[in-house]
Amino acid sequence: MIAPELSLVLVGFGHVGRRLVRLLTEVADRLDFEWRVVGVATRHHGTVLNPAGVDVERAAALVEANQSLDRLDPEPGERSGLDLLRQASSLLADDAAEGRLVCVESTVLDIERGEPAITHVRAALEAQMHVVTVNKGPAAFAYDELESLADAVDRVFFFEGAVMDGVPVFNLVRETMPAVRVEGFRGVINTTSNFILSALERGQSFDLAVREMQGRGIAEADPSLDIDGWDAAAKTAALVNVLMGGRITPHDVARTGIAGVRTADLREAIAHGRRVRLVASAGRRGAELIARVEPEMLAPGDPLAELADTENALYLRTDLLGEVGIVQRESTLTQTAYAVLSDLSRISLRLRDWTGR
Amino acid sequence: MIAPELSLVLVGFGHVGRRLVRLLTEVADRLDFEWRVVGVATRHHGTVLNPAGVDVERAAALVEANQSLDRLDPEPGERSGLDLLRQASSLLADDAAEGRLVCVESTVLDIERGEPAITHVRAALEAQMHVVTVNKGPAAFAYDELESLADAVDRVFFFEGAVMDGVPVFNLVRETMPAVRVEGFRGVINTTSNFILSALERGQSFDLAVREMQGRGIAEADPSLDIDGWDAAAKTAALVNVLMGGRITPHDVARTGIAGVRTADLREAIAHGRRVRLVASAGRRGAELIARVEPEMLAPGDPLAELADTENALYLRTDLLGEVGIVQRESTLTQTAYAVLSDLSRISLRLRDWTGR
Repeated sequence: MIAPELSLVLVGFGHVGRRLVRLLTEVADRLDFEWRVVGVATRHHGTVLNPAGVDVERAAALVEANQSLDRLDPEPGERSGLDLLRQASSLLADDAAEGRLVCVESTVLDIERGEPAITHVRAALEAQMHVVTVNKGPAAFAYDELESLADAVDRVFFFEGAVMDGVPVFNLVRETMPAVRVEGFRGVINTTSNFILSALERGQSFDLAVREMQGRGIAEADPSLDIDGWDAAAKTAALVNVLMGGRITPHDVARTGIAGVRTADLREAIAHGRRVRLVASAGRRGAELIARVEPEMLAPGDPLAELADTENALYLRTDLLGEVGIVQRESTLTQTAYAVLSDLSRISLRLRDWTGR
Repeated sequence: MIAPELSLVLVGFGHVGRRLVRLLTEVADRLDFEWRVVGVATRHHGTVLNPAGVDVERAAALVEANQSLDRLDPEPGERSGLDLLRQASSLLADDAAEGRLVCVESTVLDIERGEPAITHVRAALEAQMHVVTVNKGPAAFAYDELESLADAVDRVFFFEGAVMDGVPVFNLVRETMPAVRVEGFRGVINTTSNFILSALERGQSFDLAVREMQGRGIAEADPSLDIDGWDAAAKTAALVNVLMGGRITPHDVARTGIAGVRTADLREAIAHGRRVRLVASAGRRGAELIARVEPEMLAPGDPLAELADTENALYLRTDLLGEVGIVQRESTLTQTAYAVLSDLSRISLRLRDWTGR
């Protein structure tokens, strides 16, 4: 069996994108695909497009030294992420036609409309590229449209990293729970909030905890997205849309963040054997889908109550398997990058199935 | 896309086998395959073989009324499970050649050698049948041999139901965690023991708890297999062999059951905020694989400590995803039967990939 060779166009090259290319190199001997990066777009550090392959270690070093990628480009020019996608699909038309051209989208989430990620995903699919994104926006705002488009062009739209990094959530249900209906869920799915609540419980300061999460590359660039519950609301919308057939956006999620939670409240809860956690949940009330994100006072024995620091967990209520939980004990950049790796591996598997056994 | 039609030979038709055929009927509209049962073998209620299809509801009713299946057979005769497999593969040679003949094995575990399940699995594979089993024996005693055989004959050997019923464990790693190395695990994976420990904590009696589990069809026919830790040891061996590349049997697992656990010990533990649980674990010490099953005193915050009654959980230590847990909040016969359904669905997917898109 010959390993498929994937050509990657990286739209976004922040913490996750850079960790991804290094991770792919570190575990090269375990991959079921070959890969090269043919293009990289950044917001503030230029772009590079090279069908022969970009030197990704050099690209990462340039960005980390606050320099431009343009110097790596044989024909440098001003380009947006969208421009890069269009030029890449044109220069690599054969790869696109063979299903080996992949857009890896990791731009920053705009919580108003899910852009520019949605535009990137749409353009990539229209250009016959597969899409892997760690961005919550596309599944949270436009899952139905993008999944239909992917079907129509016979390409995939994968986003395992949108919730709980590389710990399988979407793949868990789609790949291992056939015929199961997801009736609802409860989870702790925003790492930064959970870390802050844990820090407050220990008597540490809110601001210090935020800076710690930013230092590890986990907090959103604008930490208010975490603190105000927007990140959890976007994940909740993605889960509702993908696993429960909803058609909601993050703005349909009833949302209360953790800004109003005080250390005294947390201590009081602990004194009564309870914990306060930012809980994301969804369920059905008749035909209506109810989704919410809010700090909840959790009783002892609640499986979400003991989640501390960077732990995440999601408990799915299902008809055939009862309640099933998936738990992430720690959250790191490697795990977010791994989400992309796992989606790329599924694309590789699909290419093998196509070309026969 | 035409749904593949699977012909099922059920070797074993106890609680799980009967729940399976009813479940497949209940969720028929959600399945990606058609199915019929062409043969059933039982230990005490005869056998039936009918290539035109067995009336499974009648078969289940006969067994439940303690009557023989022979009356359903066009040509009844004395047969072992092995005889049935051989006759079925001969009568349904076309189905076998097309990869649509499936042995569903659910006989009772013999902890000495893993028989007769291993013989059934081997014979079925040699006859070009796919195999789905909920039996722990084959993966616990002979995984390497049977997996190699399955590869050689281009058929599958699936056993998702061997650990944590239909909650994905083997499929979780194989389908959703590509390139990840499992370095070890800890889990509560024997439902009967956990139910007994929870009952003792509540001041109920050991024997009553055992009878409750037998009544629900969850305890092994011989409950000493649960109580003495053999069931957990067999699951541990299966996990070590499949997920960690081991070549051990349940006899290589250091094993202490719960027979020696007293109510006073449990109450004493609770008084100190701790819990006693039967923990299955494995890890590497240099080149050596260490596997054990024993009651452990768990500190508060240990994710296994809060598991009560019929809850199970398995925490995998991995290199790329850190520690990942999968949690089953309740264990029922439906969930065990679902394990077979999920494996059948994977066979169906394989048949679709074979026949093209």
